[in-house]
Amino acid sequence: MLEGTWYLEKHTESLLFLHKIKNHIYHGKTAYQKVDIVEIEAFGKTLFLDGKIQSAQIDEFIYHEALVHPAMLTHPDPKNVIILGGGEGATLREVLRHPVERATMVDIDEQLVKLCEAYLPEWHAGAFYDERTNLVFADARSYMENSNETYDVVISDLTEPLEGGPSVMLFTKEFYGIVYDHLSDDGVLVVQSASADPYYNEFVRDVFATLKEVFPTVKVFHAPVFSFQMDWAFTLATKGRDPEGVPVEEIERRISSFSNALKFYTPDLHHALFKLPRFLRDVLTKGRVITDENPPVWLS
Amino acid sequence: MLEGTWYLEKHTESLLFLHKIKNHIYHGKTAYQKVDIVEIEAFGKTLFLDGKIQSAQIDEFIYHEALVHPAMLTHPDPKNVIILGGGEGATLREVLRHPVERATMVDIDEQLVKLCEAYLPEWHAGAFYDERTNLVFADARSYMENSNETYDVVISDLTEPLEGGPSVMLFTKEFYGIVYDHLSDDGVLVVQSASADPYYNEFVRDVFATLKEVFPTVKVFHAPVFSFQMDWAFTLATKGRDPEGVPVEEIERRISSFSNALKFYTPDLHHALFKLPRFLRDVLTKGRVITDENPPVWLS
Amino acid sequence: MLEGTWYLEKHTESLLFLHKIKNHIYHGKTAYQKVDIVEIEAFGKTLFLDGKIQSAQIDEFIYHEALVHPAMLTHPDPKNVIILGGGEGATLREVLRHPVERATMVDIDEQLVKLCEAYLPEWHAGAFYDERTNLVFADARSYMENSNETYDVVISDLTEPLEGGPSVMLFTKEFYGIVYDHLSDDGVLVVQSASADPYYNEFVRDVFATLKEVFPTVKVFHAPVFSFQMDWAFTLATKGRDPEGVPVEEIERRISSFSNALKFYTPDLHHALFKLPRFLRDVLTKGRVITDENPPVWLS
Amino acid sequence: MLEGTWYLEKHTESLLFLHKIKNHIYHGKTAYQKVDIVEIEAFGKTLFLDGKIQSAQIDEFIYHEALVHPAMLTHPDPKNVIILGGGEGATLREVLRHPVERATMVDIDEQLVKLCEAYLPEWHAGAFYDERTNLVFADARSYMENSNETYDVVISDLTEPLEGGPSVMLFTKEFYGIVYDHLSDDGVLVVQSASADPYYNEFVRDVFATLKEVFPTVKVFHAPVFSFQMDWAFTLATKGRDPEGVPVEEIERRISSFSNALKFYTPDLHHALFKLPRFLRDVLTKGRVITDENPPVWLS
Repeated sequence: MLEGTWYLEKHTESLLFLHKIKNHIYHGKTAYQKVDIVEIEAFGKTLFLDGKIQSAQIDEFIYHEALVHPAMLTHPDPKNVIILGGGEGATLREVLRHPVERATMVDIDEQLVKLCEAYLPEWHAGAFYDERTNLVFADARSYMENSNETYDVVISDLTEPLEGGPSVMLFTKEFYGIVYDHLSDDGVLVVQSASADPYYNEFVRDVFATLKEVFPTVKVFHAPVFSFQMDWAFTLATKGRDPEGVPVEEIERRISSFSNALKFYTPDLHHALFKLPRFLRDVLTKGRVITDENPPVWLS
Repeated sequence: MLEGTWYLEKHTESLLFLHKIKNHIYHGKTAYQKVDIVEIEAFGKTLFLDGKIQSAQIDEFIYHEALVHPAMLTHPDPKNVIILGGGEGATLREVLRHPVERATMVDIDEQLVKLCEAYLPEWHAGAFYDERTNLVFADARSYMENSNETYDVVISDLTEPLEGGPSVMLFTKEFYGIVYDHLSDDGVLVVQSASADPYYNEFVRDVFATLKEVFPTVKVFHAPVFSFQMDWAFTLATKGRDPEGVPVEEIERRISSFSNALKFYTPDLHHALFKLPRFLRDVLTKGRVITDENPPVWLS
Repeated sequence: MLEGTWYLEKHTESLLFLHKIKNHIYHGKTAYQKVDIVEIEAFGKTLFLDGKIQSAQIDEFIYHEALVHPAMLTHPDPKNVIILGGGEGATLREVLRHPVERATMVDIDEQLVKLCEAYLPEWHAGAFYDERTNLVFADARSYMENSNETYDVVISDLTEPLEGGPSVMLFTKEFYGIVYDHLSDDGVLVVQSASADPYYNEFVRDVFATLKEVFPTVKVFHAPVFSFQMDWAFTLATKGRDPEGVPVEEIERRISSFSNALKFYTPDLHHALFKLPRFLRDVLTKGRVITDENPPVWLS
Repeated sequence: MLEGTWYLEKHTESLLFLHKIKNHIYHGKTAYQKVDIVEIEAFGKTLFLDGKIQSAQIDEFIYHEALVHPAMLTHPDPKNVIILGGGEGATLREVLRHPVERATMVDIDEQLVKLCEAYLPEWHAGAFYDERTNLVFADARSYMENSNETYDVVISDLTEPLEGGPSVMLFTKEFYGIVYDHLSDDGVLVVQSASADPYYNEFVRDVFATLKEVFPTVKVFHAPVFSFQMDWAFTLATKGRDPEGVPVEEIERRISSFSNALKFYTPDLHHALFKLPRFLRDVLTKGRVITDENPPVWLS
């Protein structure tokens, strides 16, 4: 039936998506953002923040496995990991598959995390209750500035820097310098970097240029996220191993210990993800460095 | 401005796309299908057939390079090539980058090809006027059944088999047997195979199962096509070389002679495209064989 | 903000309405229908049943005053009134402005009435708790067939007869015969009769033809209901006074005793509502009689 | 079929209309406005200016008969008439039904009038070629300021005063003073005055207040225009007869000479149109006077 409630998502000024809502689960606001949790026929349960899709039941595994495992496998033996953002808890879930000692998640929006805990249990799958988990509600920049810890892997799982939004100062050269100082010798940073498509790739382009100012090795990789309707970019920066130098056999061995099978990531795919379409490879040479004085302007 | 004309595309019963139309170029019908050619802000000129997007100026190169070059490079030296379908002429354009002797394009819809020739010159880029081109307006199945030629590469660039539509009998085991008989010893067939996404992968699954009945080597590969809002699947079947066995150096050498630079395909990417997400690799084992008696039912 | 949840209403196959939802109040189903209660910027609280707007806070007064007062004023002194349908309780509210002794409301959908009682208190305004109110949950046809009472005014406030829906047998000649038999000598029946517009006036046309078979005097009147996006038709059938014969002075006197001011109906307007556009007056001569054997087919 | 081209009309920020387009007739721009002429299933041929519906084949007669005949009949014998605006020519068509000597139409947008002449012949029905017609392409205010003529009826058939648009200075007290000075002793002015609905009635309210400053008798009337999805308001100002004082018999006699039957207006309806819903009658007391210094701000 065509009639009823639909979720309108503005992909761009000239492309609107309408998702038919099967069930209404939650509609409300936190101190930071508008939250809609609905069930959609094709996607299952789906979280929208400020009108933008964040993750959907059918394929949140693509985004979260792609965000976490290439970075975790690039480090030879990550023990202390921090997630910046990470609301739904699925990034944490993927981190905890690895034999880490401690996983800190720093999200500014406590209400959102509580809503996800209650309404999206398939995402965290109990990760919030793991004894290795350290859940902190704070601004990630302040937290990093004041932290005395050293991390093996830092995972930037933040919403795009909408003007005036909470993540604007978390993509700058200065912030990445702070991250660098908190990483161990083989330390790895991965940053979700928005679209890898021909039309909207300025963001990954600039994140790449910015991280190149701070880290010796920076690589972009990509994965097609169905519910985002886009090929998605991630930027990996490392003090140690090149992610493309990790042996397939090591990946095979390390993921074979996981209690549940992965649904997206494979040893082969690890290496394939770093092979970019030519237009994207070319555009990455043209980025501008993002600084505290000149933070990204993301058009809503 | 929100007001004005929009193109509504029904991705599924529960996901609608609305594309703002910047310019109206052509609206009409051929003997076979409804044709809309419009200019869209984000995509540039865009062709819709029967309400479904076919290709867009911004990224038709992704689809067409992915369809053509992995197949052409898998053959060691293709001289005689045939395209089944191929309306816009961009598949033909990519084929003619290679030193072929003859490229036949068989499309049932002459009016559509003429419309594309007139309104989408960026797609064919003169390919229709190349002396190696043999343009035929006919049903591809009848043409193949009656052909005495042997082809090095067959490219299936057909619309999805909508019930009652012209391409229904072009995805069956029997038809692929006919194609097999017209291929040279190192012959390669590539079939555009619709979505590679978690929700709608039955089609590539069944095309794969069907081609496995006919060809010794069958591989699925995928490429993210921005304007389709999907990761897109292609199935490659070969009598000769495994596409994953083509040396990077050979690809590098052969594409270096192209007069204009490629925008998507690279030697590295050739191999990466064949690495599949685990869910897709797993689903490919579960297909059913498509036969003339049991052709695909594609829901419009 | 364009993004967020919208209510899509299918006015016709070729005209869709999208209402931005400001607040979600209730989404669910009763035994009879899908119920959505939402707050809309322009309309305030709004009730949708099976995807069709029923009433909106901003102008439910137009529909309910137009439905009730011309009929009540046509009767010289109504004491016993029955409402067929009437879910929200606003029709009852308007009836109770008059010095009636008893107002019966017969609605088949108890769950819907309870939802309206809880979520739409502005509609009933306490009418459900008036001591003159007799609230019955039953099929209106069975109730009338089995009733021994005589009514002064019968108000048909039913949803349109969707195929298979609960109101199909409540618009037939046979049913109107039953109503006739339960009316007192000056008895009046009013039937909400859907659109009065040039495009969809078959329903009022046929209701008029049907009532003409049963009642000596039948008149159509109309009122523009903003939130329906239409001019709305009502059919009034009477055993006694012609509604156009009621003196303005009598209307003035009788409504002057109402405790709260009316917002739509006035003595002047009473007479103006019965003056029809010529195309509508002409079309009313062409209706077909609706019978139990040949009930209305209303396309959803 | 849901897929294809649709016209999106923004009724308000929170109510969008989507009209399925059956045929594309014209899309383009004049020096003054964006013009879309399309065929819509429910409405037939339809004209949109700057994204707003202007008139539709199915019911343009409602708007144009309501705009013209109450004003023409209020004057005892109109001989010289001027239309301000009037693009499509249907207002002119209705004026020419009367035994006028001369009908001047002043529209600023010559290209639009030519497009309507070519693509909407059902609207003008040859009125542009009537020997009594004087078609002028000019700004209506300048034209009136410089005119030495005296008119019996002035018909303001202008688009709403969008900020920066051509009609902003045509709804002010000063302009209405100029109109007054060009009217004969029994002269009548009628102004199309936008919505008569509960939500957006500020415009008619202010037009009414403004005309009351200039004319001795000012009355608002209303008619439900289906394709506008609204009850529509008109304001009639007269130096002579009160429109509510015109005898039904006179109307009957004068319209009986028309060569083609009217489809909306009747003698009875003439009087009924002036009877207003109470909320509208009440709101008319609260308007502000529109002046050249303080022209209307109409939100697009």
